[in-house]
Amino acid sequence: MFIEAIYHRAIQPYLYAKDKDTVHILLETKAGDVDKVELLYGDPYDFKDDQWQFKKLQMKLTGSTARKDYWGITIKPEFRRLRYGFRCSNQQTSVVVTEKGFYENIPREIGQFFCFPYVHEADVFQPPAWVKDTIWYQVFPERFANGDSSLNPDGTLEWGSGEPTPTSFYGGDFQGVIDHLDYLQELGVNGIYFTPIFKAHSNHKYDTIDYFEIDPQFGDKETFRRLVKECHLRGMKVMLDAVFNHSGFYFPPFQDVLKNQQESKYVNWFYPWDFPIQTEPMPNYDTFAFVSTMPKLNTSDPEVRNYLLKVATYWIEEFDIDGWRLDVANEIDHSFWRDFRQVVKKVKPEAYILGEVWHDSLKWLQGDQFDAVMNYPFTDAVIEFFAKDTIDCAMFKDRVTEVQHSYPSNVNEVSFNLLGSHDTARILTLANGNIAKVKLMLLFQLSYTGSPCIYYGDEVGMTGGEDPGCRECMEWDPSQQNRELLSFVKQLIHLRKNIATFGNDATFRFEQADNNVVIYSKKAKDTKLVFALNNNEFAETVNTDILCGKEVVDVFTGEKIRFDGQAEIVLAPYGFICVQF
Amino acid sequence: MFIEAIYHRAIQPYLYAKDKDTVHILLETKAGDVDKVELLYGDPYDFKDDQWQFKKLQMKLTGSTARKDYWGITIKPEFRRLRYGFRCSNQQTSVVVTEKGFYENIPREIGQFFCFPYVHEADVFQPPAWVKDTIWYQVFPERFANGDSSLNPDGTLEWGSGEPTPTSFYGGDFQGVIDHLDYLQELGVNGIYFTPIFKAHSNHKYDTIDYFEIDPQFGDKETFRRLVKECHLRGMKVMLDAVFNHSGFYFPPFQDVLKNQQESKYVNWFYPWDFPIQTEPMPNYDTFAFVSTMPKLNTSDPEVRNYLLKVATYWIEEFDIDGWRLDVANEIDHSFWRDFRQVVKKVKPEAYILGEVWHDSLKWLQGDQFDAVMNYPFTDAVIEFFAKDTIDCAMFKDRVTEVQHSYPSNVNEVSFNLLGSHDTARILTLANGNIAKVKLMLLFQLSYTGSPCIYYGDEVGMTGGEDPGCRECMEWDPSQQNRELLSFVKQLIHLRKNIATFGNDATFRFEQADNNVVIYSKKAKDTKLVFALNNNEFAETVNTDILCGKEVVDVFTGEKIRFDGQAEIVLAPYGFICVQF
Repeated sequence: MFIEAIYHRAIQPYLYAKDKDTVHILLETKAGDVDKVELLYGDPYDFKDDQWQFKKLQMKLTGSTARKDYWGITIKPEFRRLRYGFRCSNQQTSVVVTEKGFYENIPREIGQFFCFPYVHEADVFQPPAWVKDTIWYQVFPERFANGDSSLNPDGTLEWGSGEPTPTSFYGGDFQGVIDHLDYLQELGVNGIYFTPIFKAHSNHKYDTIDYFEIDPQFGDKETFRRLVKECHLRGMKVMLDAVFNHSGFYFPPFQDVLKNQQESKYVNWFYPWDFPIQTEPMPNYDTFAFVSTMPKLNTSDPEVRNYLLKVATYWIEEFDIDGWRLDVANEIDHSFWRDFRQVVKKVKPEAYILGEVWHDSLKWLQGDQFDAVMNYPFTDAVIEFFAKDTIDCAMFKDRVTEVQHSYPSNVNEVSFNLLGSHDTARILTLANGNIAKVKLMLLFQLSYTGSPCIYYGDEVGMTGGEDPGCRECMEWDPSQQNRELLSFVKQLIHLRKNIATFGNDATFRFEQADNNVVIYSKKAKDTKLVFALNNNEFAETVNTDILCGKEVVDVFTGEKIRFDGQAEIVLAPYGFICVQF
Repeated sequence: MFIEAIYHRAIQPYLYAKDKDTVHILLETKAGDVDKVELLYGDPYDFKDDQWQFKKLQMKLTGSTARKDYWGITIKPEFRRLRYGFRCSNQQTSVVVTEKGFYENIPREIGQFFCFPYVHEADVFQPPAWVKDTIWYQVFPERFANGDSSLNPDGTLEWGSGEPTPTSFYGGDFQGVIDHLDYLQELGVNGIYFTPIFKAHSNHKYDTIDYFEIDPQFGDKETFRRLVKECHLRGMKVMLDAVFNHSGFYFPPFQDVLKNQQESKYVNWFYPWDFPIQTEPMPNYDTFAFVSTMPKLNTSDPEVRNYLLKVATYWIEEFDIDGWRLDVANEIDHSFWRDFRQVVKKVKPEAYILGEVWHDSLKWLQGDQFDAVMNYPFTDAVIEFFAKDTIDCAMFKDRVTEVQHSYPSNVNEVSFNLLGSHDTARILTLANGNIAKVKLMLLFQLSYTGSPCIYYGDEVGMTGGEDPGCRECMEWDPSQQNRELLSFVKQLIHLRKNIATFGNDATFRFEQADNNVVIYSKKAKDTKLVFALNNNEFAETVNTDILCGKEVVDVFTGEKIRFDGQAEIVLAPYGFICVQF
């Protein structure tokens, strides 16, 4: 047995409390190396004749990649305390895995074993309950809809005319959003994520001038208040974008520093290297990337901290928003985010805190900082397999399985799963205009664990390359919209909302991944969904064991299907099936 | 190459900031599988012609076990931001290790790489600076010295008479400690850890009755204040023991619950399962272990939390103590400890927070909770190898190497390294009375990374089995003390204080471990110490490469030694040598 590949440590995601009674445990072994894993477990204080009393339970293989097998188990320790180890067996041998080492026989000494000393509700990762039932829609306000032309900035272009540039304005605003809430409601989404709306210089508003003011091109505070109310009336949540890593160039404190240099009372709001502060040829202060017009905010400075935390609570208390998406969240200190969570959850315990982190985010997802991150590792896997064909289905399965096992299950359930955003090329463009591939991506996204988000316009087949291409005006002309795609998205959302197993109330696992066909299941207590997605330009026939002899219902057509001992499925080119039993 | 055994994740101890400029990175590979590891690294925003610019640096093999090789590197990223990956090579092949997978060639996409987004001083693990230069002495107040017989509890026994029982009293008190501070100063220790001193029922005082009162058998608050002052005058720190997991049976709030049951206003201070609360035959409320007289305190209750946090600050503010040792710290919620750290560090930023955790403690050592834990995994390895001979020297090296690589280096430097305590049998007893073995253990302890602690009386050769055997009265009769051992301990402490390389200002590594002889080095910038310890009852001759051709000084004798190409060292039975060059 390859004991060098066996990994477990008494930290997330290998060990965590799922709720106040329930503990999840995860062990990694080399793929294919171990046939059986038993959990050896007991209460740390349960001794009989000086001998620790432990029990055994068999763990489940919850996923596999080319490299690793993942073994999981869920238990409810009677006294909320746990000592535990593992016994891994294969045909040749068996090895006992403890915190202190690897043994042939089970050690007598309890001190050898791993420990979950006590399950405390206060330490459980507790995201807002509503998020796992939320389907998001991302709105880039300048480009969603122009509902009040009186607010148009100078030089506003005709809606949808030409290609957007980094500096073009089309006059999108809040009234435009309000005017189309019925559209969103009909689509079925129940959460809107707005990219920044505060006073700023650019069209994207990521260069904040005033964190306490609405940008006048979008409307005023009353209009925003009305927008939030209208959303809430329709059962939709509202999430805003907080750009706290850096300010805009025209943020008055930064202008004050440029003007008064060392004498500025805002000098500690930023990270000056020396004086005089200059923007050319290179900024001599910390910035976002190397962009001189985006000076990095010093979130360790108590004044800055208080200022930003006030921003965080102001928009919740005054306008009742439901969440914050945090821009460049990974470059701000953890200490700030801990305080941020405290103040936000104090004013709205059910607020959603979503960090923009593109890479491994475990440090932010311990329960004391974010509820979720933008799940770009998920995005990448889906895009590379379905849209770009740059990875095969085995690699796709591996990449998704790794993401799935990188975090606790309660983290995964509220993960912000996107296929694209204002920062990426549009999915239809990445898929070379192949609508069928876009459908497969959306089907996978909307049937996967987490909180999916649709980027405005993707549902009607909009195209566009990377920024600014992906920020075109929303297509409202029905004759220009892909109505069939729109119907499909509505159907997916409907299924997700109406079949619990389609969403988070089920356990996801890959069943097969061969010949560019991916088969996965969603299992709940009494019911199961099986999905088969054919990412080939030709029809493909697959046999799948788990359907053998089953009578099932096709959830898209309502048709009843009885599978024989072969369980043969014929999938059209880029076709799919989803059956329930 | 065994890629299944390669492990790195962007979390401690694999990735962390050592200080505001410096990042440490650690990678695990299968032992002996990889010859060379390069770090591929660069700034996340440094692109030329759309191509990310990265550099290469060779990583160092910092330790090895039978299972794993540990590769480490320290770098100072110019803009405090870092993207990175690894290239592992051996004779046959080379593999690039990224966050997203394993590759033959270096991927072009920066998104593949691991990320340390931004080094923030606020997130650096920052223990008190004084701890790494502190040598602790643990005092069990009831048994250290009786300096004021007027305080003797009823039934106090003659000092040192008979074997202590769980209920015997010998009258140790604060005046006794004050009377012997000169002894401790001469010994060289500069920190005293007192087991509990608050009003309690038992002789060990782990069953608190009043957290705001000194137990009358030890003295009053004025005596305690004088004790702290006297310690501080001698440059000694004072650490108290906080028993916050459970109260004593006679703690008034618990008595109130027993009396008034559901009606008690203290009902939420504990974890009742049902009513009436009863202690027999089994407690129907949460307890420490299954001990009915130790009811578990509900640290999630705001009143309890405030009460205990007040205790934490009271003894610092009123008596200027320097640290808290936290009893059964692992069974209290992390959320409580985060608040605890905040309030303690607010009143004394340089206070030391030490948790009692016997197992893997990574969850508590992220910088937001404890500064250190009682390093029992270190203890166990030392005891099992030197005292009990139950593991061989290869296993000893593996166990210590694992402890060393389980935590960041700044965590290791303040780790509370003990050989024994009031909770374990005494080292001389565990070593079957072999003083030479005790010397080897003390030498290893006092030359290893961390903050060592001597359990009262071990320095004069006291014996005793597990509690209550290990809690005998301190031996003050010079004719009964092992004066030679005492001199040796003084010499070790002297060396540790006077040779920086002996303590924390050097990097520890094992050089050899064969035939029950352990050779290790401590390396600083311009100087190195090499230790060889012979854990055999016979003389042993070893050859060690690193001393070949070196002219060195024996730090114990001052003797100069010139090694030839063989570097042969002859070690007496249980002998040792420590040379500097």
